[in-house]
Amino acid sequence: MKVIKFGGSSLASGTQLEKVFEIVISDPERKVVVVSAPGKRYPDDTKVTDLLIECANKHLENKEPKEEFEALIERYTAIADELGLPAEIIAEIKTDFSNRLNADKSNPDRFMDLVKASGEDNNAKLVAAFFRKKGIDASYVDPKEAGLYVSNEPGNAQVLPESYELLFKLHERPGILVFPGFFGYSKEGEVFTFSRSGSDITGSILANALKADLYENFTDVDAVYAVNPSLIARPKEIKELTFREMRELSYAGFSVLHDEALVPAFRAGIPVHIKNTNNPQAHGTKIVAERDNTNGPVIGVASDEGFCSIYVSKYLMNREIGFGRKLLSILEDLGLSYEHTPSGIDDLSVILRENQLNAEKEAEIIRRIKYELHADEVKIVHSLALIMVVGEGMRHNIGTMARASKALAKAEVNIEMINQGSSEVSMMFGVKEVDELRAVKAIYEEFFAAVPV
Amino acid sequence: MKVIKFGGSSLASGTQLEKVFEIVISDPERKVVVVSAPGKRYPDDTKVTDLLIECANKHLENKEPKEEFEALIERYTAIADELGLPAEIIAEIKTDFSNRLNADKSNPDRFMDLVKASGEDNNAKLVAAFFRKKGIDASYVDPKEAGLYVSNEPGNAQVLPESYELLFKLHERPGILVFPGFFGYSKEGEVFTFSRSGSDITGSILANALKADLYENFTDVDAVYAVNPSLIARPKEIKELTFREMRELSYAGFSVLHDEALVPAFRAGIPVHIKNTNNPQAHGTKIVAERDNTNGPVIGVASDEGFCSIYVSKYLMNREIGFGRKLLSILEDLGLSYEHTPSGIDDLSVILRENQLNAEKEAEIIRRIKYELHADEVKIVHSLALIMVVGEGMRHNIGTMARASKALAKAEVNIEMINQGSSEVSMMFGVKEVDELRAVKAIYEEFFAAVPV
Repeated sequence: MKVIKFGGSSLASGTQLEKVFEIVISDPERKVVVVSAPGKRYPDDTKVTDLLIECANKHLENKEPKEEFEALIERYTAIADELGLPAEIIAEIKTDFSNRLNADKSNPDRFMDLVKASGEDNNAKLVAAFFRKKGIDASYVDPKEAGLYVSNEPGNAQVLPESYELLFKLHERPGILVFPGFFGYSKEGEVFTFSRSGSDITGSILANALKADLYENFTDVDAVYAVNPSLIARPKEIKELTFREMRELSYAGFSVLHDEALVPAFRAGIPVHIKNTNNPQAHGTKIVAERDNTNGPVIGVASDEGFCSIYVSKYLMNREIGFGRKLLSILEDLGLSYEHTPSGIDDLSVILRENQLNAEKEAEIIRRIKYELHADEVKIVHSLALIMVVGEGMRHNIGTMARASKALAKAEVNIEMINQGSSEVSMMFGVKEVDELRAVKAIYEEFFAAVPV
Repeated sequence: MKVIKFGGSSLASGTQLEKVFEIVISDPERKVVVVSAPGKRYPDDTKVTDLLIECANKHLENKEPKEEFEALIERYTAIADELGLPAEIIAEIKTDFSNRLNADKSNPDRFMDLVKASGEDNNAKLVAAFFRKKGIDASYVDPKEAGLYVSNEPGNAQVLPESYELLFKLHERPGILVFPGFFGYSKEGEVFTFSRSGSDITGSILANALKADLYENFTDVDAVYAVNPSLIARPKEIKELTFREMRELSYAGFSVLHDEALVPAFRAGIPVHIKNTNNPQAHGTKIVAERDNTNGPVIGVASDEGFCSIYVSKYLMNREIGFGRKLLSILEDLGLSYEHTPSGIDDLSVILRENQLNAEKEAEIIRRIKYELHADEVKIVHSLALIMVVGEGMRHNIGTMARASKALAKAEVNIEMINQGSSEVSMMFGVKEVDELRAVKAIYEEFFAAVPV
């Protein structure tokens, strides 16, 4: 049995829904369909979820969102018309939107969740109706009645453990089940949404709960690429990668899948297959627990900028028990989260995202570290980029570091720091932001192919 | 003005003392001479300090250390005879030893310090007498009367800040001042010794207090070498290195100077010159605050074994604020001191000296990390060696990492971890202990010279 999830662009129009239908019925294992709200049809289009947020905000300001509301109904009407669905379905959707927008606003965050969730909820009803019109046994599943219980954190709900057993009972239902993504219900029966990209989370939870053989995630790209296509044109596609590789890549700028969304599938060992609704013949990218290391040590190169380092030096630091812990406590105290802590004998750097800092906070950090830890020197270095070179088992391939660092030297990139050790899946290079693109190109060329100029 | 310190082997016999005399009088700037106790004359010889420890231990067990006491007196007598010094000086030394050995033993640690310190104290008197016999104005300085005050920690005394001003007054004294190394006095007038190699500390304190231009440290090697001579025969000599380079090298197996001893000189910016008593014409090695980077990026390669790593992985670890701090707190709680913490996205390793662990402690570490931090995996990897590649400004020399890692790859050494980032002076490679020698040779060959087979 497969759980199959479609993203917003796969559901943006009647034409897209025809593709979705063909994909679902082409494989009898595809039993549970998770849907997002209709996304963009063209680059300047507005997503249904964004229209809903605008409507909700205007209501919260006691304004009438006439234009946005019309645009919203128009999106569903266009799809229904294209597919020749009866007018009643649009009337039903319109009533639902109106009811939600006129609901209790005493808690604005909860009100917002109630409104946002309607994009997916109504789309699931529409998709089920479309499938039935095509002569297929299909039904909408209400998450509340099916038992998708979540914590009552608006915009960041977490699935409750008891949901898994309840959702397993969906196996008893006949036909194709269309399940709305993005939200669940608290024990008190209120709607709460997951974080953005939450439909991926719903699919992952259902795959886990139903003990699916595969979680198919249909989007609008042919595959996960070995490097960011906005940096290097026509990069290699990755056919198979492990959860760990996916996580390392998504950390540094790869955004095909929201990595947290994979957790339920990951914990249950269910593979995830990323495919393209617009080109279902393409192989896509399969995310698995383990894979054969047959295509060389490196599977992808990712990068992200906006990092800085706090450098602290103190003569004989390494004799001082608790120095590192005290330093991290100061940062925690200041609400800062950090990424890495490369260290020498008498110095320690803390790498963190620099959007957490401002001039005032920096002065405070320097003051506290100097004063409380009696450091000889404290300085903050800005504008760093991290380059992740990712590949399962790479560490045990003698010479990978030599190849990567030689490629960087040839490209005249100075390595500000290297972190290799803990992870068996990646090497991290810190470089100046101005060197980022040159560094990524050099490493991609070394491990994959010549980069077209 | 220069402070000049002689180690035990430089003072082991009359012949050695003649060399010391020639060295001191050859430069009128050499005003303050710090002396150790007589050391070994030949490899199987016993150091005076070790004889003193044996005597003290026997006294503490209420035994008569007849043999050791005779050997002790014999050492001083042999030197005095060789130099033609009057018999009274030996009588005086004998009385002093006897008095100390018969002192109060209610606090055995303090008794031990009192006895141990006599090796240096009496040697300073003997050296001053010898200089005077040679017609030079020289006098013994009593640390108590000169004001070298220390904390009352037996075997690990720390200099008290007020000592510096008091010791500065030694400038007023004429002639050559012979100062015993290794110990000072508490405010209550009791003897406390520094940690072993403490005569280097005394010299460093005096250089700081007297605002010396140079602290000369005479020992029995021509220089600090670029690599451990017991690993590679006839290695290159280092002519000049910075305090930071010295510290990084001494961390991983270089033991020419006790690094803590350099702190007072380092803080005052006074250069340290390591020279050979037996070959004073040799250039020696100068330790300075800053140096020109004229001899390539790498100045030395050091290594040390006996490390292990605690590897901890947890999916989405990097979203968890405080994870690293909590992990370090557990280790601190268990009394473990650690060296480095290389990290991936979802994993973290802690590198520490494995002599701190045993099977029971390891089980406890694993249990607590799994239980308190809900880690997915915790494992301890044993028998690691750390290789330090050291050189000031090396990081800004593009391609150093490429050269080092290529050399390791060519020697078929797998790099278990790399720590480069914080320090601007070193790169650290973690390798398996079995690969240590091969790794050091490969890096030495790459940056210095072909290693003779």
